[in-house]
Amino acid sequence: MHTIEEYQKLIQSAIEKEIIQRKPRELYDPIIYTLAIGGKRLRPMLTMLTCDIFDGDIQQAIYPALGLETFHNFTLLHDDIMDNAPIRRGLPTVYKKWDSNTAILSGDTMMVMAYDFILASPKDLLFDIFTVFNRVGREVCEGQQYDLNFETNNNVTLDEYLKMIHLKTAVLLGGSMQVGALIARTSEKNVQLIYDLGESVGMAFQLQDDLLDVFGDEEVFGKKNGGDIRTNKKTFLYIKALELGSPEQQKELKQLFNIQEENDNKVKRVLEIFQELNIEAETHHLMDCYYDRAMKTLEKINLDKVKKSILIKLADSLMNRNN
Amino acid sequence: MHTIEEYQKLIQSAIEKEIIQRKPRELYDPIIYTLAIGGKRLRPMLTMLTCDIFDGDIQQAIYPALGLETFHNFTLLHDDIMDNAPIRRGLPTVYKKWDSNTAILSGDTMMVMAYDFILASPKDLLFDIFTVFNRVGREVCEGQQYDLNFETNNNVTLDEYLKMIHLKTAVLLGGSMQVGALIARTSEKNVQLIYDLGESVGMAFQLQDDLLDVFGDEEVFGKKNGGDIRTNKKTFLYIKALELGSPEQQKELKQLFNIQEENDNKVKRVLEIFQELNIEAETHHLMDCYYDRAMKTLEKINLDKVKKSILIKLADSLMNRNN
Repeated sequence: MHTIEEYQKLIQSAIEKEIIQRKPRELYDPIIYTLAIGGKRLRPMLTMLTCDIFDGDIQQAIYPALGLETFHNFTLLHDDIMDNAPIRRGLPTVYKKWDSNTAILSGDTMMVMAYDFILASPKDLLFDIFTVFNRVGREVCEGQQYDLNFETNNNVTLDEYLKMIHLKTAVLLGGSMQVGALIARTSEKNVQLIYDLGESVGMAFQLQDDLLDVFGDEEVFGKKNGGDIRTNKKTFLYIKALELGSPEQQKELKQLFNIQEENDNKVKRVLEIFQELNIEAETHHLMDCYYDRAMKTLEKINLDKVKKSILIKLADSLMNRNN
Repeated sequence: MHTIEEYQKLIQSAIEKEIIQRKPRELYDPIIYTLAIGGKRLRPMLTMLTCDIFDGDIQQAIYPALGLETFHNFTLLHDDIMDNAPIRRGLPTVYKKWDSNTAILSGDTMMVMAYDFILASPKDLLFDIFTVFNRVGREVCEGQQYDLNFETNNNVTLDEYLKMIHLKTAVLLGGSMQVGALIARTSEKNVQLIYDLGESVGMAFQLQDDLLDVFGDEEVFGKKNGGDIRTNKKTFLYIKALELGSPEQQKELKQLFNIQEENDNKVKRVLEIFQELNIEAETHHLMDCYYDRAMKTLEKINLDKVKKSILIKLADSLMNRNN
């Protein structure tokens, strides 16, 4: 087994090798910018680690992993246009730094590049890997559409919310692990189980993201608290608060989430309601449910104890992260 | 051999089979709308016909052909946002009928669908077909970027223009034929030659498009003449006129192409300059060069006379079309 740092180093060198100057520069500069900014490189790391855990050749996993990372960054690029998000990872987003047309077309090109990286998978696995990749790609788009729909839907249910984050976030984390397992040529059963595990961890991961946005350490998380509240985003916290709140609290929350202007008092007041209703603990409770589900899935996977403990450590780190 | 109508019928039924109601409707309705409007279905027809000409099983070509058509329609969907084009094939474009966000996300989903259709190719050909598809996909994006760059470049050269239409149009026509040849499992040499042929025909096809926009029969072509002139699009006709014109004509053309408002007199005057400079004949001359190149390529292809005559008829019909 290799360390997380070793996976990340391999991914980083592959990215640097691929970040070459192509023409037209107007098209490729934003792609280089996007890929270089980076982020946690979580998805490719999951692919590499899963391949390694099932005793696969991690060299074979590098390019498929890079494909998943490139796809993920492509979705961010287009999502930022749709969400009018000017900043990501502390830097201006592509549509802000350049313009919308550039962001659309560079995103499209990144998607083709993602498929091209995936094409470097072992040939006899191409059908299986593309099948996973296409399904995940489609579901991520569907998730983004549900997320957009929520903007104008004032009665989003918890089930609808969970379905949305499942599609928008969890399936890609599950899929990243599934691709790693396919490359390791482990059993069909293991491939399915590791997908399920990644999906459950992905749900908890997104809930943690919702929490960090409100309760995170601003220094460590790298952005101002309450961004979701400022933009009236219907996260788990908001929907749960509406479910648990008194008629007065419900009414106030809905009114607060109608304010369009930047407003620190609004964030403060929403936070108070969240605290009155114990929303942080409620969120942790649901995260624990997904964690338990992941652990039950892990039990069924055919792996030795040491390997299982690595996956447990991974799940823990994704749930207890602070950025 | 089958008839063009038979290919189109097979493609049409495959499209209708795939146009099913999926959720969320906000995402899939625009896709259904786009695929249903149709158009000439030229690219999938090229794939089917090429497969048939090389004695391939055309049933195996249906889904890859559909993938190429879906990819083409995806690019139109995103191009219409970038070009601010409100009408296509006589109907409102997706970003006009819905909005930009819908057009971006539905387009992204169509691209994944295109890859999913391609995935239905014979498994042992997946690597080769995806290689063609990815290269073409990337080049089409590059071509669109050059086209966007031309909007703010007042000194586009003929070479730059030809490179742009090569990337934006010709490689997809060539690629569509190449995929058909791959499915027919003809020789590597034939696969390359048929790509070259499709590329040359594609260049002539695009030049014909530039001509039709200015000189076409409005009734048959389905849109008002001079659309490219109204939107100051730098087509072959404009660039050639600048090259051949007197300093006065050059100056006047540049001034006319600075007018932003809808203006019938402008179209009339540009048309007069084109006629003074014999631009229609100049365009036909270049189209003939590409036609000759296609015919020289055809000579090298290992095919009987009857099959070759079908390809000649195809090239003729694409060059002498009136819509």
